[in-house]
Amino acid sequence: MTDARTLPVIEIFGPVLQGEGRMIGAQTLFVRLGYCDYRCAWCDSLYAVTPELVNAQAERLTVEAIVARLDALNPTTPWVTLSGGNPAIHDLGALAARLHVGGRQIAVETQGTVFREWLRACEVVTVSPKPPSSGMRTDYAQLDRFAALPSANLKVVVFDEADYAYARSIHLRYPGVPFYLQVGTAVGQDDTATLLAKLDWLGRLALADPAMGAAVVLPQLHVLLYGNRRGV
Amino acid sequence: MTDARTLPVIEIFGPVLQGEGRMIGAQTLFVRLGYCDYRCAWCDSLYAVTPELVNAQAERLTVEAIVARLDALNPTTPWVTLSGGNPAIHDLGALAARLHVGGRQIAVETQGTVFREWLRACEVVTVSPKPPSSGMRTDYAQLDRFAALPSANLKVVVFDEADYAYARSIHLRYPGVPFYLQVGTAVGQDDTATLLAKLDWLGRLALADPAMGAAVVLPQLHVLLYGNRRGV
Repeated sequence: MTDARTLPVIEIFGPVLQGEGRMIGAQTLFVRLGYCDYRCAWCDSLYAVTPELVNAQAERLTVEAIVARLDALNPTTPWVTLSGGNPAIHDLGALAARLHVGGRQIAVETQGTVFREWLRACEVVTVSPKPPSSGMRTDYAQLDRFAALPSANLKVVVFDEADYAYARSIHLRYPGVPFYLQVGTAVGQDDTATLLAKLDWLGRLALADPAMGAAVVLPQLHVLLYGNRRGV
Repeated sequence: MTDARTLPVIEIFGPVLQGEGRMIGAQTLFVRLGYCDYRCAWCDSLYAVTPELVNAQAERLTVEAIVARLDALNPTTPWVTLSGGNPAIHDLGALAARLHVGGRQIAVETQGTVFREWLRACEVVTVSPKPPSSGMRTDYAQLDRFAALPSANLKVVVFDEADYAYARSIHLRYPGVPFYLQVGTAVGQDDTATLLAKLDWLGRLALADPAMGAAVVLPQLHVLLYGNRRGV
Protein backbone atom coordinates (compact mmCIF):
# COMPACT_ATOMS: atom_id res chain seq x y z
CA MET A 1 0.00 0.00 0.00
CA THR A 2 2.97 2.34 0.49
CA ASP A 3 6.15 2.66 -1.44
CA ALA A 4 9.46 3.12 0.31
CA ARG A 5 9.45 6.88 0.18
CA THR A 6 5.95 8.11 0.91
CA LEU A 7 3.09 7.44 3.30
CA PRO A 8 -0.65 7.81 2.64
CA VAL A 9 -1.67 10.65 4.94
CA ILE A 10 -5.34 11.43 5.47
CA GLU A 11 -4.89 14.40 7.75
CA ILE A 12 -2.35 16.16 9.93
CA PHE A 13 -3.86 18.39 12.58
CA GLY A 14 -3.42 19.91 15.99
CA PRO A 15 -2.25 20.71 18.49
CA VAL A 16 -5.36 19.48 20.30
CA LEU A 17 -6.08 17.80 23.59
CA GLN A 18 -6.07 14.01 23.30
CA GLY A 19 -9.66 13.17 24.07
CA GLU A 20 -9.41 9.61 25.31
CA GLY A 21 -7.49 6.84 27.01
CA ARG A 22 -4.08 6.83 28.62
CA MET A 23 -3.19 10.25 27.18
CA ILE A 24 -6.47 12.00 27.94
CA GLY A 25 -6.00 15.75 28.25
CA ALA A 26 -2.46 15.71 26.84
CA GLN A 27 -1.51 18.14 24.10
CA THR A 28 -0.69 16.39 20.86
CA LEU A 29 -0.43 16.72 17.13
CA PHE A 30 -2.13 14.00 15.06
CA VAL A 31 -1.01 12.19 11.93
CA ARG A 32 -3.79 10.02 10.52
CA LEU A 33 -2.58 7.38 8.08
CA GLY A 34 -4.86 5.77 5.53
CA TYR A 35 -5.95 2.14 5.16
CA CYS A 36 -7.03 -0.43 7.70
CA ASP A 37 -7.21 -4.20 7.98
CA TYR A 38 -10.53 -3.90 9.85
CA ARG A 39 -13.91 -2.48 8.93
CA CYS A 40 -15.68 -1.97 12.25
CA ALA A 41 -19.44 -1.67 12.10
CA TRP A 42 -19.39 1.65 13.95
CA CYS A 43 -16.11 3.04 12.56
CA ASP A 44 -15.97 6.82 13.06
CA SER A 45 -13.12 7.34 10.57
CA LEU A 46 -14.23 5.49 7.43
CA TYR A 47 -12.61 8.26 5.39
CA ALA A 48 -9.30 6.80 6.56
CA VAL A 49 -10.36 3.17 6.04
CA THR A 50 -12.37 2.57 2.87
CA PRO A 51 -9.81 1.94 0.09
CA GLU A 52 -11.70 3.96 -2.52
CA LEU A 53 -11.89 6.95 -0.18
CA VAL A 54 -8.26 6.64 0.87
CA ASN A 55 -7.06 6.18 -2.71
CA ALA A 56 -8.91 9.30 -3.71
CA GLN A 57 -8.14 11.48 -0.72
CA ALA A 58 -4.83 10.50 0.85
CA GLU A 59 -1.80 12.62 0.16
CA ARG A 60 1.42 10.73 -0.44
CA LEU A 61 3.93 12.44 1.81
CA THR A 62 7.56 11.80 2.62
CA VAL A 63 8.74 11.70 6.22
CA GLU A 64 10.32 15.14 5.78
CA ALA A 65 7.08 16.57 4.41
CA ILE A 66 5.12 15.16 7.35
CA VAL A 67 7.60 16.62 9.83
CA ALA A 68 7.48 20.00 8.06
CA ARG A 69 3.68 20.07 8.36
CA LEU A 70 3.87 19.18 12.05
CA ASP A 71 6.48 21.85 12.70
CA ALA A 72 4.31 24.40 10.89
CA LEU A 73 1.35 23.50 13.11
CA ASN A 74 3.43 23.72 16.28
CA PRO A 75 7.16 23.26 16.71
CA THR A 76 7.03 22.60 20.45
CA THR A 77 4.04 20.33 21.12
CA PRO A 78 5.71 17.40 22.88
CA TRP A 79 3.50 14.60 21.54
CA VAL A 80 2.68 13.30 18.09
CA THR A 81 -0.09 10.71 17.87
CA LEU A 82 0.04 8.26 14.97
CA SER A 83 -3.49 7.11 14.21
CA GLY A 84 -5.52 5.73 11.33
CA GLY A 85 -7.01 3.59 9.98
CA ASN A 86 -4.45 1.26 11.41
CA PRO A 87 -1.05 2.97 11.38
CA ALA A 88 0.67 -0.34 12.13
CA ILE A 89 0.02 -1.66 8.64
CA HIS A 90 2.72 0.79 7.46
CA ASP A 91 6.43 0.90 8.08
CA LEU A 92 6.66 4.00 10.24
CA GLY A 93 10.16 3.31 11.55
CA ALA A 94 11.75 6.18 9.64
CA LEU A 95 9.00 8.58 10.67
CA ALA A 96 9.32 7.57 14.32
CA ALA A 97 13.09 8.00 14.27
CA ARG A 98 12.80 11.41 12.62
CA LEU A 99 10.19 12.57 15.12
CA HIS A 100 12.47 11.58 17.97
CA VAL A 101 15.35 13.52 16.40
CA GLY A 102 13.01 16.51 16.42
CA GLY A 103 12.35 16.07 20.11
CA ARG A 104 8.82 14.72 19.84
CA GLN A 105 7.40 11.82 21.83
CA ILE A 106 5.21 9.33 20.00
CA ALA A 107 1.86 7.83 20.90
CA VAL A 108 0.33 5.19 18.64
CA GLU A 109 -3.33 4.18 18.34
CA THR A 110 -3.84 0.72 16.84
CA GLN A 111 -6.13 -2.27 17.19
CA GLY A 112 -3.27 -4.69 17.78
CA THR A 113 -3.58 -6.84 14.70
CA VAL A 114 -0.23 -6.20 12.96
CA PHE A 115 2.83 -6.14 15.15
CA ARG A 116 5.77 -4.08 13.89
CA GLU A 117 9.28 -3.72 15.29
CA TRP A 118 9.12 0.10 15.02
CA LEU A 119 6.44 0.09 17.70
CA ARG A 120 9.18 -0.66 20.23
CA ALA A 121 10.55 2.84 19.71
CA CYS A 122 7.28 4.58 20.62
CA GLU A 123 6.68 5.96 24.11
CA VAL A 124 3.00 5.02 24.36
CA VAL A 125 1.27 2.27 22.38
CA THR A 126 -2.47 2.25 22.88
CA VAL A 127 -3.88 -1.07 21.75
CA SER A 128 -7.63 -1.24 21.24
CA PRO A 129 -8.84 -4.72 20.36
CA LYS A 130 -12.34 -4.49 18.96
CA PRO A 131 -15.35 -5.91 20.82
CA PRO A 132 -18.16 -8.03 19.31
CA SER A 133 -20.24 -5.02 18.25
CA SER A 134 -17.52 -4.17 15.75
CA GLY A 135 -18.11 -7.39 13.83
CA MET A 136 -14.35 -8.02 13.81
CA ARG A 137 -12.45 -11.05 15.11
CA THR A 138 -9.53 -10.71 17.57
CA ASP A 139 -6.16 -12.16 16.58
CA TYR A 140 -4.86 -13.20 19.98
CA ALA A 141 -1.45 -14.27 18.73
CA GLN A 142 -0.84 -10.73 17.47
CA LEU A 143 -2.43 -9.15 20.53
CA ASP A 144 -0.10 -11.14 22.80
CA ARG A 145 2.87 -9.47 21.10
CA PHE A 146 1.44 -5.99 21.61
CA ALA A 147 0.55 -6.68 25.23
CA ALA A 148 4.17 -7.64 25.92
CA LEU A 149 5.39 -4.13 25.06
CA PRO A 150 6.34 -2.18 28.20
CA SER A 151 4.76 0.87 26.52
CA ALA A 152 1.43 -0.88 25.91
CA ASN A 153 -1.90 0.03 27.35
CA LEU A 154 -5.20 -1.58 26.42
CA LYS A 155 -8.37 0.31 25.60
CA VAL A 156 -11.65 -1.37 24.80
CA VAL A 157 -14.63 0.54 23.47
CA VAL A 158 -17.90 -0.68 24.96
CA PHE A 159 -21.28 -0.23 23.31
CA ASP A 160 -23.27 -3.00 25.05
CA GLU A 161 -23.06 -5.80 27.58
CA ALA A 162 -21.49 -8.27 25.17
CA ASP A 163 -18.73 -5.74 24.56
CA TYR A 164 -18.29 -5.38 28.30
CA ALA A 165 -17.87 -9.15 28.68
CA TYR A 166 -15.25 -9.06 25.93
CA ALA A 167 -13.43 -6.15 27.62
CA ARG A 168 -13.42 -8.14 30.84
CA SER A 169 -11.87 -11.17 29.13
CA ILE A 170 -9.13 -8.98 27.63
CA HIS A 171 -8.32 -7.44 31.01
CA LEU A 172 -8.19 -10.88 32.62
CA ARG A 173 -5.90 -12.17 29.86
CA TYR A 174 -3.42 -9.30 30.36
CA PRO A 175 -3.77 -8.31 34.02
CA GLY A 176 -0.46 -6.45 34.10
CA VAL A 177 -1.28 -4.08 31.25
CA PRO A 178 -2.93 -0.75 32.15
CA PHE A 179 -6.55 -1.08 31.08
CA TYR A 180 -9.06 1.55 29.91
CA LEU A 181 -12.78 1.12 29.35
CA GLN A 182 -14.14 3.65 26.90
CA VAL A 183 -17.70 4.63 26.22
CA GLY A 184 -18.60 3.76 22.64
CA THR A 185 -19.91 6.67 20.61
CA ALA A 186 -22.06 5.98 17.59
CA VAL A 187 -21.97 8.62 14.88
CA GLY A 188 -25.13 10.70 15.26
CA GLN A 189 -25.54 9.70 18.93
CA ASP A 190 -23.07 12.17 20.23
CA ASP A 191 -25.20 14.53 22.30
CA THR A 192 -23.76 15.31 25.70
CA ALA A 193 -26.60 13.88 27.77
CA THR A 194 -26.45 10.53 25.94
CA LEU A 195 -22.67 10.35 26.33
CA LEU A 196 -22.74 11.15 30.03
CA ALA A 197 -25.51 8.63 30.62
CA LYS A 198 -23.42 5.98 28.88
CA LEU A 199 -20.39 6.88 30.97
CA ASP A 200 -22.51 6.49 34.07
CA TRP A 201 -23.75 3.07 32.84
CA LEU A 202 -20.26 1.83 32.02
CA GLY A 203 -18.85 3.14 35.27
CA ARG A 204 -21.53 1.31 37.27
CA LEU A 205 -20.78 -1.97 35.50
CA ALA A 206 -17.08 -1.70 36.30
CA LEU A 207 -17.56 -0.47 39.86
CA ALA A 208 -19.77 -3.47 40.64
CA ASP A 209 -17.32 -5.98 39.16
CA PRO A 210 -14.54 -7.17 41.48
CA ALA A 211 -12.49 -8.36 38.49
CA MET A 212 -12.46 -4.88 37.00
CA GLY A 213 -11.36 -2.75 39.94
CA ALA A 214 -8.16 -1.67 38.21
CA ALA A 215 -9.90 -0.61 35.00
CA VAL A 216 -9.97 3.11 34.27
CA VAL A 217 -13.31 4.29 32.85
CA LEU A 218 -13.32 7.29 30.54
CA PRO A 219 -15.46 9.10 27.97
CA GLN A 220 -14.19 10.68 24.78
CA LEU A 221 -13.68 14.32 25.76
CA HIS A 222 -13.39 15.50 22.16
CA VAL A 223 -16.82 14.09 21.39
CA LEU A 224 -18.23 15.84 24.47
CA LEU A 225 -16.59 19.06 23.31
CA TYR A 226 -17.05 18.98 19.58
CA GLY A 227 -19.35 16.08 18.67
CA ASN A 228 -18.26 13.11 16.58
CA ARG A 229 -16.54 14.81 13.69
CA ARG A 230 -13.27 15.15 11.85
CA GLY A 231 -10.13 17.09 12.69
CA VAL A 232 -10.65 17.44 16.43
CA MET B 1 -7.23 18.91 66.14
CA THR B 2 -7.00 15.14 66.42
CA ASP B 3 -6.04 12.96 69.31
CA ALA B 4 -3.77 9.98 68.90
CA ARG B 5 -6.52 7.44 68.37
CA THR B 6 -9.20 8.98 66.21
CA LEU B 7 -9.50 11.06 63.07
CA PRO B 8 -12.25 13.57 62.18
CA VAL B 9 -13.99 11.97 59.22
CA ILE B 10 -16.52 13.95 57.22
CA GLU B 11 -17.51 11.20 54.81
CA ILE B 12 -16.42 7.83 53.50
CA PHE B 13 -17.88 6.92 50.15
CA GLY B 14 -17.41 4.99 46.95
CA PRO B 15 -16.34 3.19 44.98
CA VAL B 16 -16.64 5.92 42.37
CA LEU B 17 -14.62 7.04 39.39
CA GLN B 18 -12.03 9.67 40.28
CA GLY B 19 -13.29 12.67 38.36
CA GLU B 20 -10.14 14.72 37.95
CA GLY B 21 -6.41 14.96 37.58
CA ARG B 22 -3.75 12.30 37.41
CA MET B 23 -6.18 9.54 38.49
CA ILE B 24 -9.11 10.55 36.26
CA GLY B 25 -11.37 7.60 35.53
CA ALA B 26 -9.76 5.34 38.14
CA GLN B 27 -11.95 3.48 40.60
CA THR B 28 -11.45 4.64 44.16
CA LEU B 29 -12.94 4.87 47.59
CA PHE B 30 -12.81 8.27 49.29
CA VAL B 31 -12.04 9.25 52.87
CA ARG B 32 -12.69 12.94 53.46
CA LEU B 33 -11.03 14.32 56.57
CA GLY B 34 -12.20 17.45 58.30
CA TYR B 35 -10.42 20.80 58.84
CA CYS B 36 -8.28 22.88 56.55
CA ASP B 37 -5.60 25.55 56.86
CA TYR B 38 -7.09 27.36 53.85
CA ARG B 39 -10.44 28.96 53.15
CA CYS B 40 -10.59 29.29 49.38
CA ALA B 41 -13.10 31.78 48.04
CA TRP B 42 -14.72 29.15 45.83
CA CYS B 43 -14.30 26.11 48.10
CA ASP B 44 -16.70 23.34 47.06
CA SER B 45 -16.33 21.40 50.33
CA LEU B 46 -16.88 23.97 53.07
CA TYR B 47 -18.63 21.27 55.08
CA ALA B 48 -15.18 19.75 55.52
CA VAL B 49 -13.43 23.06 56.18
CA THR B 50 -15.41 25.43 58.39
CA PRO B 51 -14.50 24.52 62.00
CA GLU B 52 -18.05 24.93 63.32
CA LEU B 53 -19.39 22.60 60.62
CA VAL B 54 -16.61 20.08 61.10
CA ASN B 55 -16.94 20.16 64.88
CA ALA B 56 -20.64 19.49 64.55
CA GLN B 57 -20.58 16.94 61.75
CA ALA B 58 -17.31 15.00 61.77
CA GLU B 59 -17.30 11.51 63.19
CA ARG B 60 -14.26 10.63 65.27
CA LEU B 61 -13.13 7.29 63.90
CA THR B 62 -10.22 5.02 64.65
CA VAL B 63 -8.07 3.64 61.85
CA GLU B 64 -9.75 0.25 62.25
CA ALA B 65 -13.21 1.80 62.03
CA ILE B 66 -12.25 3.65 58.86
CA VAL B 67 -10.88 0.47 57.31
CA ALA B 68 -14.01 -1.45 58.29
CA ARG B 69 -16.21 1.15 56.56
CA LEU B 70 -14.06 0.99 53.44
CA ASP B 71 -14.17 -2.79 53.39
CA ALA B 72 -17.94 -2.70 53.77
CA LEU B 73 -18.22 -0.38 50.77
CA ASN B 74 -15.95 -2.53 48.64
CA PRO B 75 -13.23 -4.94 49.75
CA THR B 76 -11.43 -5.02 46.41
CA THR B 77 -11.33 -1.45 45.05
CA PRO B 78 -7.59 -0.93 44.58
CA TRP B 79 -7.41 2.77 45.44
CA VAL B 80 -8.30 4.83 48.48
CA THR B 81 -8.19 8.61 48.05
CA LEU B 82 -7.49 10.69 51.15
CA SER B 83 -9.05 14.09 50.72
CA GLY B 84 -10.39 16.96 52.77
CA GLY B 85 -10.28 19.70 53.79
CA ASN B 86 -6.54 19.27 53.87
CA PRO B 87 -5.74 15.68 54.90
CA ALA B 88 -2.08 16.61 55.42
CA ILE B 89 -2.86 18.55 58.58
CA HIS B 90 -3.44 15.17 60.25
CA ASP B 91 -1.07 12.36 61.09
CA LEU B 92 -2.34 9.69 58.69
CA GLY B 93 0.74 7.46 58.93
CA ALA B 94 -1.07 4.71 60.80
CA LEU B 95 -4.03 4.84 58.41
CA ALA B 96 -1.74 4.68 55.37
CA ALA B 97 0.19 1.72 56.78
CA ARG B 98 -3.03 -0.13 57.60
CA LEU B 99 -4.46 0.51 54.13
CA HIS B 100 -1.32 -0.92 52.59
CA VAL B 101 -1.59 -4.01 54.77
CA GLY B 102 -5.09 -4.41 53.37
CA GLY B 103 -3.77 -4.26 49.82
CA ARG B 104 -5.00 -0.79 48.95
CA GLN B 105 -3.04 1.86 47.12
CA ILE B 106 -3.27 5.43 48.36
CA ALA B 107 -3.84 8.68 46.52
CA VAL B 108 -3.74 11.96 48.45
CA GLU B 109 -5.31 15.30 47.50
CA THR B 110 -3.74 18.27 49.25
CA GLN B 111 -2.85 21.89 48.57
CA GLY B 112 0.79 21.42 49.51
CA THR B 113 0.97 23.63 52.58
CA VAL B 114 1.86 21.12 55.31
CA PHE B 115 4.46 18.52 54.47
CA ARG B 116 4.27 15.24 56.38
CA GLU B 117 6.61 12.27 56.39
CA TRP B 118 3.72 9.81 55.94
CA LEU B 119 3.15 11.26 52.47
CA ARG B 120 6.28 9.42 51.34
CA ALA B 121 4.41 6.12 51.74
CA CYS B 122 1.57 7.11 49.38
CA GLU B 123 1.57 6.00 45.75
CA VAL B 124 0.13 9.22 44.29
CA VAL B 125 0.30 12.65 45.89
CA THR B 126 -1.72 15.25 44.02
CA VAL B 127 -0.62 18.70 45.09
CA SER B 128 -2.92 21.56 44.15
CA PRO B 129 -1.51 24.96 45.07
CA LYS B 130 -4.29 27.51 44.97
CA PRO B 131 -4.36 30.30 42.39
CA PRO B 132 -5.09 34.02 43.04
CA SER B 133 -8.87 33.60 42.71
CA SER B 134 -8.81 31.49 45.88
CA GLY B 135 -7.60 34.45 47.95
CA MET B 136 -4.93 32.21 49.50
CA ARG B 137 -1.15 32.72 49.53
CA THR B 138 1.26 30.01 48.36
CA ASP B 139 3.93 28.78 50.78
CA TYR B 140 6.72 27.98 48.34
CA ALA B 141 9.04 26.52 50.96
CA GLN B 142 6.41 23.88 51.74
CA LEU B 143 5.50 23.40 48.09
CA ASP B 144 9.15 22.73 47.24
CA ARG B 145 9.10 19.78 49.63
CA PHE B 146 5.98 18.32 48.04
CA ALA B 147 7.31 18.80 44.53
CA ALA B 148 10.40 16.79 45.42
CA LEU B 149 8.31 13.66 46.10
CA PRO B 150 8.68 11.11 43.26
CA SER B 151 4.95 10.45 43.67
CA ALA B 152 3.97 14.10 43.27
CA ASN B 153 1.89 15.59 40.54
CA LEU B 154 0.73 19.19 40.43
CA LYS B 155 -2.81 20.29 39.65
CA VAL B 156 -3.88 23.92 39.41
CA VAL B 157 -7.51 24.93 39.16
CA VAL B 158 -8.01 27.85 36.78
CA PHE B 159 -10.96 30.22 36.91
CA ASP B 160 -9.53 33.22 35.04
CA GLU B 161 -6.46 34.58 33.29
CA ALA B 162 -4.68 35.56 36.50
CA ASP B 163 -5.08 31.96 37.66
CA TYR B 164 -3.64 30.77 34.37
CA ALA B 165 -0.58 32.99 34.82
CA TYR B 166 -0.13 31.52 38.29
CA ALA B 167 -0.48 27.96 36.96
CA ARG B 168 2.16 28.75 34.37
CA SER B 169 4.56 30.02 37.03
CA ILE B 170 4.07 26.85 39.06
CA HIS B 171 4.76 24.65 36.04
CA LEU B 172 7.89 26.64 35.20
CA ARG B 173 9.11 26.37 38.80
CA TYR B 174 8.74 22.55 38.80
CA PRO B 175 9.21 21.51 35.16
CA GLY B 176 9.89 17.87 36.03
CA VAL B 177 6.65 17.31 37.92
CA PRO B 178 3.64 16.06 35.92
CA PHE B 179 1.32 19.02 35.58
CA TYR B 180 -2.47 19.22 35.26
CA LEU B 181 -4.58 22.24 34.43
CA GLN B 182 -8.12 21.89 35.71
CA VAL B 183 -11.19 23.85 34.81
CA GLY B 184 -12.47 25.70 37.88
CA THR B 185 -16.08 24.97 38.74
CA ALA B 186 -18.01 27.47 40.79
CA VAL B 187 -20.87 26.06 42.83
CA GLY B 188 -24.06 26.84 40.91
CA GLN B 189 -22.20 27.20 37.60
CA ASP B 190 -21.99 23.52 36.94
CA ASP B 191 -24.14 23.09 33.85
CA THR B 192 -22.56 20.95 31.17
CA ALA B 193 -22.44 23.60 28.45
CA THR B 194 -20.66 26.07 30.74
CA LEU B 195 -18.15 23.45 31.84
CA LEU B 196 -17.35 22.34 28.32
CA ALA B 197 -16.99 25.94 27.15
CA LYS B 198 -14.54 26.55 29.99
CA LEU B 199 -12.58 23.43 29.09
CA ASP B 200 -12.38 24.67 25.51
CA TRP B 201 -11.18 28.08 26.74
CA LEU B 202 -8.52 26.62 29.03
CA GLY B 203 -7.38 24.16 26.37
CA ARG B 204 -6.91 26.97 23.86
CA LEU B 205 -4.81 28.98 26.31
CA ALA B 206 -2.50 26.04 26.95
CA LEU B 207 -2.31 24.94 23.31
CA ALA B 208 -1.22 28.42 22.26
CA ASP B 209 1.45 28.66 24.97
CA PRO B 210 4.85 27.13 24.12
CA ALA B 211 5.78 26.98 27.80
CA MET B 212 2.74 24.83 28.58
CA GLY B 213 3.00 22.08 25.99
CA ALA B 214 3.50 19.37 28.58
CA ALA B 215 0.49 20.42 30.66
CA VAL B 216 -2.47 18.04 30.68
CA VAL B 217 -5.82 19.86 30.51
CA LEU B 218 -8.84 18.20 32.10
CA PRO B 219 -12.36 18.92 33.30
CA GLN B 220 -13.94 17.46 36.44
CA LEU B 221 -15.85 14.45 35.11
CA HIS B 222 -17.87 14.05 38.29
CA VAL B 223 -19.21 17.58 37.93
CA LEU B 224 -20.12 16.87 34.30
CA LEU B 225 -21.87 13.70 35.43
CA TYR B 226 -23.50 14.73 38.66
CA GLY B 227 -23.14 18.48 39.10
CA ASN B 228 -21.18 20.09 41.91
CA ARG B 229 -22.46 18.17 44.91
CA ARG B 230 -21.46 15.95 47.77
CA GLY B 231 -20.68 12.25 47.88
CA VAL B 232 -19.81 11.75 44.23
